[in-house]
Amino acid sequence: MTSPIITLLTDFGTAGPYAAAVKGAILGITPSAAIVDITNDVPPQDIHAAAFILGSVYRSFPPGTIHLAVVDPGVGTARRPLLLVTPHALFVGPDNGIFTYVLRDALPAEEDRPLSFLQPFTLAVPGGIHAYALTVPRYWRHPVSSTFHAHDIFGPVAAHLARGETPERLGEPVEGVTCLWVPWARWAQDTLEGLVLAVDPFGNAITNVPGRLLEGRQVVLEIGGRRIHGIKKTYAEGDGLLAVVGSHGLVEVSVRNGNAARVLGVGVGHPVWVRGGERTASGQATGGTPA
Amino acid sequence: MTSPIITLLTDFGTAGPYAAAVKGAILGITPSAAIVDITNDVPPQDIHAAAFILGSVYRSFPPGTIHLAVVDPGVGTARRPLLLVTPHALFVGPDNGIFTYVLRDALPAEEDRPLSFLQPFTLAVPGGIHAYALTVPRYWRHPVSSTFHAHDIFGPVAAHLARGETPERLGEPVEGVTCLWVPWARWAQDTLEGLVLAVDPFGNAITNVPGRLLEGRQVVLEIGGRRIHGIKKTYAEGDGLLAVVGSHGLVEVSVRNGNAARVLGVGVGHPVWVRGGERTASGQATGGTPA
Amino acid sequence: MTSPIITLLTDFGTAGPYAAAVKGAILGITPSAAIVDITNDVPPQDIHAAAFILGSVYRSFPPGTIHLAVVDPGVGTARRPLLLVTPHALFVGPDNGIFTYVLRDALPAEEDRPLSFLQPFTLAVPGGIHAYALTVPRYWRHPVSSTFHAHDIFGPVAAHLARGETPERLGEPVEGVTCLWVPWARWAQDTLEGLVLAVDPFGNAITNVPGRLLEGRQVVLEIGGRRIHGIKKTYAEGDGLLAVVGSHGLVEVSVRNGNAARVLGVGVGHPVWVRGGERTASGQATGGTPA
Repeated sequence: MTSPIITLLTDFGTAGPYAAAVKGAILGITPSAAIVDITNDVPPQDIHAAAFILGSVYRSFPPGTIHLAVVDPGVGTARRPLLLVTPHALFVGPDNGIFTYVLRDALPAEEDRPLSFLQPFTLAVPGGIHAYALTVPRYWRHPVSSTFHAHDIFGPVAAHLARGETPERLGEPVEGVTCLWVPWARWAQDTLEGLVLAVDPFGNAITNVPGRLLEGRQVVLEIGGRRIHGIKKTYAEGDGLLAVVGSHGLVEVSVRNGNAARVLGVGVGHPVWVRGGERTASGQATGGTPA
Repeated sequence: MTSPIITLLTDFGTAGPYAAAVKGAILGITPSAAIVDITNDVPPQDIHAAAFILGSVYRSFPPGTIHLAVVDPGVGTARRPLLLVTPHALFVGPDNGIFTYVLRDALPAEEDRPLSFLQPFTLAVPGGIHAYALTVPRYWRHPVSSTFHAHDIFGPVAAHLARGETPERLGEPVEGVTCLWVPWARWAQDTLEGLVLAVDPFGNAITNVPGRLLEGRQVVLEIGGRRIHGIKKTYAEGDGLLAVVGSHGLVEVSVRNGNAARVLGVGVGHPVWVRGGERTASGQATGGTPA
Repeated sequence: MTSPIITLLTDFGTAGPYAAAVKGAILGITPSAAIVDITNDVPPQDIHAAAFILGSVYRSFPPGTIHLAVVDPGVGTARRPLLLVTPHALFVGPDNGIFTYVLRDALPAEEDRPLSFLQPFTLAVPGGIHAYALTVPRYWRHPVSSTFHAHDIFGPVAAHLARGETPERLGEPVEGVTCLWVPWARWAQDTLEGLVLAVDPFGNAITNVPGRLLEGRQVVLEIGGRRIHGIKKTYAEGDGLLAVVGSHGLVEVSVRNGNAARVLGVGVGHPVWVRGGERTASGQATGGTPA
């Protein structure tokens, strides 16, 4: 039988013992677990960065994978330990917004909310997802500290799931979970105002503009005081600044063989504007003036 | 049958080929070995940092795990290749102090020694531990270089252990092993003088003050010219500088959502003082003046 | 049965989702694959650095290992996806020079070419190696993006190889592959002019001077304005700058417990000169004047 896969996503760094300690705790319960690091280099306490990475990667793993995601500045406080079961995977970690993008993927449509970017709110668990507060100490590693729940609670729970334990036995159903507010960009007339969601290790600035929104339009992007005409197919086109629809399905701003975020001086939350009218059958743009 | 676990702890970095070469050498001998990185980002040649991390993490792994620890500035010189067998695990690496904390965990009590912090000395192998000098070349990978024993000697020996080879066949018993001198802090009247043992990836300054020494006392810590009143339960309490008993069982100095070592300007070896009297039954401190 | 080994060598970094996404794509096809990171910290777009690391490490892995190497600034353009089958291993990645050192290892002798250091050229596939352009989309993950072939093409192909798929079914034979020009240093009279090929995580400057060329000679190295007399056996000899024949079989310049590349101010491509005559039977150098 194939080993169950447990992924690990934390801000523990790779220079210290913490990520390895979690793996040891898992292997002590489920020695055959196949543990795969997503990353342990999330910037310390950056819940949204972790959420974005998790949202980017979980669909690449086979169904049933157990994703252990722990960026947890509130460890030991009242924030709940959480288990999410979706049609695609299982997710274990603190109820602090780290599952934001997983939850959004399950929302049939998204309404506007009077929230600022990354503000936490309680989301009713979307249909098709089951959420549990982890409340059953017999699946934890004792003594349970107040500083290292990845090792004492989340890791052991993931290991028990990998052994085949059912979610119902590990905790109690909950109806609302913490989510961070991240708007998707939308067209208003011929202008779309978006923002940078993440900067990847290449320096590509990944925006909240879904690539499909730009199909059939002739567009100009403005970001960091620079203009970019059109969307390219690959990172290798053009000599300087360019925009592509990357593997996240989102518009990314990139510099060929360079670091776009550094060149532009932009980071998470930085605004981006897109202007452009619908293309006619003849390929001529209508409306708006891609200046 | 479950694969044997081999952990890897080195200063090889993750940007070059060395850690992967060791894994390749192991898998060439024991293809089913489950290799888990503890870290390969120990600061170059920092034996004590490696020793501290190993001591922090080995108890999280299941019994019988094989820990391969190689920070080895003396590679190719007279320093012995070593195998330690403890009731908890097996340890393979150079005899240069990298097993300091593993050895100390086995000492029933600790006497004072006229040594300065981190000075190496020869420790009689504590009861319950067996130590072997690795002397049997048939378990090595040939040709054996004078620059890469992790690949040529330590990795192959760990792989043979994972295949079930007995320690006695791999080398010869030794009675003394190299240890670095690390004092534990102790109370002298109502004052305790300690020092920083390590700074973790979050910037927490981990001291040599065991948390249990502070139980029942009302304490004030002094470090880097700052005072900290009392011990908190979690990293999330208070707004600024705080002290907790972390997952090592040691007092850590932390900054909520910040980097304490940077804020305080402290590093390994930096002094910390704790003052405080025993708490009476009524919760009133006696002796000392927590100023 | 033992899991097949797939190694991963990329410039994706460890802070983002990309390396993990590739692993997920592999495990979705071959759940029992044992994936080992060589490194994901190749400097962005540095094909030669990746090629050097791959060439350093692949022989440490057991025969039949599948090496997935993707540093691919031309992703989505006309550069071919490639599979190399050598007597030692299988290699999957873009046809852009990343297999330079693997190919060189298969060349019986090396002729001079009128090329500058690291200039790409087309090499006739050496005897004993089979090369295939990956052309069969049924082994890919769909939809295939134009920005992430490691995830959509290379990873899935490696996974199918690990399941036992034969190379012939995955693509079409090709007769020429891209190689970067890297000369090996040679003696011209009693002088040898070489250069730095790589700087490792310790700061050791690894040159293109094979150690065997210096056997039986009394040599003086010049690099970064400094002279080094003789070749040492270990990194621990002497107090300062020294030269050893490292695990690559190449002359390395090192600083005991320090960073040679930083001390000397040298990097990839920096020249090194070796001077020295053949040693006579009595150990006396002849010819040349090791100044």
